[in-house]
Amino acid sequence: MHEFELIKKYFSKLSKKNKSALNLNDDVFFDKKKELVISIDTYNNKNHFINFNEPDLVIKKIIRSSISDLICKGVQPKFYFISGSGNKKSFSNNNLLKISKSLKKEQKKYGIFLCGGDTTFSNKLSFSVTSVGYSKKIIYRNKARINDDIYVTGNLGDSFMGLQILKKKIKFNKKINDYFINKYYKPDIQLKIAKKLSIFANSSIDISDGLIADLEKLLNEQNYSYEININKIPISKYLSKLIKIYKFTKSKLISNGDDYQVLFTAPGIKSRIIDRTSKILGIKITKIGKIVNGNKKSHIIDEKGKKIVLKNKGYIHKF
Amino acid sequence: MHEFELIKKYFSKLSKKNKSALNLNDDVFFDKKKELVISIDTYNNKNHFINFNEPDLVIKKIIRSSISDLICKGVQPKFYFISGSGNKKSFSNNNLLKISKSLKKEQKKYGIFLCGGDTTFSNKLSFSVTSVGYSKKIIYRNKARINDDIYVTGNLGDSFMGLQILKKKIKFNKKINDYFINKYYKPDIQLKIAKKLSIFANSSIDISDGLIADLEKLLNEQNYSYEININKIPISKYLSKLIKIYKFTKSKLISNGDDYQVLFTAPGIKSRIIDRTSKILGIKITKIGKIVNGNKKSHIIDEKGKKIVLKNKGYIHKF
Repeated sequence: MHEFELIKKYFSKLSKKNKSALNLNDDVFFDKKKELVISIDTYNNKNHFINFNEPDLVIKKIIRSSISDLICKGVQPKFYFISGSGNKKSFSNNNLLKISKSLKKEQKKYGIFLCGGDTTFSNKLSFSVTSVGYSKKIIYRNKARINDDIYVTGNLGDSFMGLQILKKKIKFNKKINDYFINKYYKPDIQLKIAKKLSIFANSSIDISDGLIADLEKLLNEQNYSYEININKIPISKYLSKLIKIYKFTKSKLISNGDDYQVLFTAPGIKSRIIDRTSKILGIKITKIGKIVNGNKKSHIIDEKGKKIVLKNKGYIHKF
Repeated sequence: MHEFELIKKYFSKLSKKNKSALNLNDDVFFDKKKELVISIDTYNNKNHFINFNEPDLVIKKIIRSSISDLICKGVQPKFYFISGSGNKKSFSNNNLLKISKSLKKEQKKYGIFLCGGDTTFSNKLSFSVTSVGYSKKIIYRNKARINDDIYVTGNLGDSFMGLQILKKKIKFNKKINDYFINKYYKPDIQLKIAKKLSIFANSSIDISDGLIADLEKLLNEQNYSYEININKIPISKYLSKLIKIYKFTKSKLISNGDDYQVLFTAPGIKSRIIDRTSKILGIKITKIGKIVNGNKKSHIIDEKGKKIVLKNKGYIHKF
């Protein structure tokens, strides 16, 4: 059963009477009266991250993934809690020192600070991160409007390529390998857009499970479909080069998740202010498609202008 | 290394500039300006709970343990988040239904509601619970005063006996077994005292690791010691009976943790109002000792009036 089906079936009724929980149907909890926004995520070794030989990098990925949930809702993260479960080896003095130093750098980069957490003994390594911010409003899922344009920040696919390299499924020269691995561990999350997003976005989500999977979550309860143009999906010059040299299929590379970019919809009249915001903040923001009326009409225009349906809709937690 | 030494060494500097985090030296995060109180805990199978054959009971224990962190600070829990990691078997439809029903009952009993969380796949079962409340003030650790009386709510030791029965280390008749197992899974946390505690308590903590271990945490940064009278430590009539019949040593039974009672200190002049509060709320509140000046003077008066030092200072998470 997919994670959100599971939550819906067994747990959404437990929060039914409470508006703030958004019926467990969004990335965050939002208490409007208290202006409080909270996001919680658990990261398990070998599932959400690999290679704890580099704990400093793993911790960066985890923290960025967590605060990305707030950023994509238009909320600046303010503080975080981290709970670690692991054994003596994972939490050796050397590793703890690395983790601590790495957290310090992330704190400075994103203006956040550690507020608590705990450590428990377990042979299975995992982390749970709670990120908190204060905001008068948030941008929700399920609020797209017909004819909204679909936008995405930054580039997609680099992180997935990094993971393939880490898993030794593919190999390039050191420079290329390092570039992609770096993008896997240190995704370019877009802190600066948090403050601006509510000026133009009707609906938003971050891309953690994959462009298509997250787009479907964004529209989940709405009777709308999407049209995405593969040619418009932003990728790095490195990924673009690989596609040319190795004849990779772009559509297969850009919907695997771990991108932590912001996916949002906005009405056509906002396109000028979006372009201006992009320039002022120095953040790439690309129009990649649009919202169309009706159900089951979602489609993708491939590199050659043909309609296709992606087989891999992106990673969804399964049970 | 003990959990709090570990936190102090590697992580407390990450929250140094932030008063709300209480230098990671308390049970909760408290943002005074926003009146926000947050507690986070992780519970691992076979370490923090056993026997997931009864997921409904395990989930009760976890939820109560989590909100106990707020209650002992004088804060009413308002909502909670739960993140579960487990496999198909742990999160079978049947188990999820049991968990969901059990949460519903806890929500009603304690006036809390589910606000979010996530489920991730893992062969190691664990839960992370975040509890949140709003309060203008909290009762801190490290604020005891010389000559303060030491109080504890409810009874101690029942939960430990329940765990011994569950681990098959000891066995009584069904009625007795059920009584203690029930106390292990469903500790009598004292919701009603949350609102009253700040009227009289100078300092407080909940008993999760054991009376002595938590008392030492309560005084951690203070140059004070404690004097505890074993005869005064409140136990149930069931535990009292077992002590008589089986010649158990009381001091060995009452400091093993999982009690989730409130341990607090209060000045002598508050004793009348504490007695009155106890009667009005119908909560047992017992004076068990007092705070004395100076370091390394902590001692326990045993059943026969002799000074003793407990060997087992209660469970502290070790790495």
